[in-house]
Amino acid sequence: MPARRIHVAILQHAYQGDRLATLRHTAGMLEQAKQKYASLDLVVLPELHPYAYFCQHEDPSHFALAQNYPQDMEFCSHLAKEHGVVLVSSLFEKRMEGVFSNTAVVFERNGAVAGIQRKMHIPDDPRFYEKFYFTPGDNFAPIATSVGNLGVLVCWDQWYPEAARIMALQKADVLIYPSAIGWVNDSSESAQEKALQREAWRGVQRGHSIANVMPVITSNRVGLELDPSGHTRGLLFFGSSFIYGAFGKELALGTQGEEIVYACLDLEESKETRLMWPFFRDRRIEAYGALLKRVVEES
Amino acid sequence: MPARRIHVAILQHAYQGDRLATLRHTAGMLEQAKQKYASLDLVVLPELHPYAYFCQHEDPSHFALAQNYPQDMEFCSHLAKEHGVVLVSSLFEKRMEGVFSNTAVVFERNGAVAGIQRKMHIPDDPRFYEKFYFTPGDNFAPIATSVGNLGVLVCWDQWYPEAARIMALQKADVLIYPSAIGWVNDSSESAQEKALQREAWRGVQRGHSIANVMPVITSNRVGLELDPSGHTRGLLFFGSSFIYGAFGKELALGTQGEEIVYACLDLEESKETRLMWPFFRDRRIEAYGALLKRVVEES
Repeated sequence: MPARRIHVAILQHAYQGDRLATLRHTAGMLEQAKQKYASLDLVVLPELHPYAYFCQHEDPSHFALAQNYPQDMEFCSHLAKEHGVVLVSSLFEKRMEGVFSNTAVVFERNGAVAGIQRKMHIPDDPRFYEKFYFTPGDNFAPIATSVGNLGVLVCWDQWYPEAARIMALQKADVLIYPSAIGWVNDSSESAQEKALQREAWRGVQRGHSIANVMPVITSNRVGLELDPSGHTRGLLFFGSSFIYGAFGKELALGTQGEEIVYACLDLEESKETRLMWPFFRDRRIEAYGALLKRVVEES
Repeated sequence: MPARRIHVAILQHAYQGDRLATLRHTAGMLEQAKQKYASLDLVVLPELHPYAYFCQHEDPSHFALAQNYPQDMEFCSHLAKEHGVVLVSSLFEKRMEGVFSNTAVVFERNGAVAGIQRKMHIPDDPRFYEKFYFTPGDNFAPIATSVGNLGVLVCWDQWYPEAARIMALQKADVLIYPSAIGWVNDSSESAQEKALQREAWRGVQRGHSIANVMPVITSNRVGLELDPSGHTRGLLFFGSSFIYGAFGKELALGTQGEEIVYACLDLEESKETRLMWPFFRDRRIEAYGALLKRVVEES
């Protein structure tokens, strides 16, 4: 089978103190990436990249950020067109009064919106109070683009084998997860626990790559962000963005600092590998009914 | 939470040339394991451990092996009782004329049958012609024992996130996979490809441990087994049996030779970890309908 190679860059960056400065910073990194990799096809940004990670506390004033959704889309559209790349952004969307979403927006090389995917699984634990801000998305659907069928999901979605599988069953070519994951910025968790968390985060997504025989691209934020409420010492986003090939092979792994994380992906590799590892052939769909239950109670 | 520790041993061994010699070999290894770990609770054997891996070719004479199912059960029952351990065996079962299963049988410490689980997903690729021999099992159900609720599955089942999830939703405490996986015994696949296969095998199951926040115990055969048809140079079973803790932490990893692979598992660890990584809380069951489809065709 002929190769179908795409050049992918993740722009792993920190929040720059305000929204417009951060968007300009993104633009600068994209320019660098394009200089380094002239034939760049696909660029992935971290979750909620233009903003501080505002979910560290519950404050209704943060909903005002979503008013910028049209301008943020326009900025990203311009970036995609200027550099001729497919761009995966992650923005704060207001759908109607009282309904806000954590929304990945994908732009075509000509700046057109190729599609959006709203975050489906919404987390809520200390310092990640996302259930206050985000209404869950409606459904899972890959986004057709000039580089392939993109199975875009958002952060917490990455822990769910169901989400990855549903994208694969809809013929996504690749899974893409903009993320914002960090450690608590204090000693309440040991270095060993923190390492285990990061390795679990990578490991579960490597599992999706293997089980679905398809590549995975995951971006993450970096840097320390303080807790505006002052109740905690904030979050340290740990970067470590990564790209896996079609059977869990590590193609790129970022540091904890700002960085362009690059790999060349062959989207035909999945096809070949699925012929000898035909997991999709043998699924027992008639025995999977329990997957649609919350818990299977004892009878 | 108080710990609920269980001592687990995998008896990673090779086929000994005939069925009874192999069962005696298993008995000898269990005796050794019991001498080394006096408080042993749970013992896991490789897939189809009393027999040659007979699926390298399609030969109806091999169905005769299933006539030994009652005697093989009796042998294993005796082993469990003699050493006071819960024992996970993997046998060839005849359910009726023309219906044969690849069946994990679990014995209680007193030798009673705690339950069985038939292999649900049946592979079929060159040198693994299992669809000729095995009718798929009916359903997924954990087996209640004195050491916990065991989510036992068999080999090819280990590549399916659906199977692991359904066991977890039925409150399994641990996933257990008797396996028979090996490399082709020739140079048609490079050393690099072979390594990638083994790492994918471990990685997908590590993914189940993380996504379901529960331990995984996987046994494998070792040794070269020739192809009785003479058409190929046979299979080299690669051992590498492993035990992961409740969040993908590697607790034990076997070599490629015969070996007792041991770990002490804390079954309470899942409970604690699930409080801070509450994946089960946030599943989007109303959006998972596509999991019950073979392929989601374009509309």
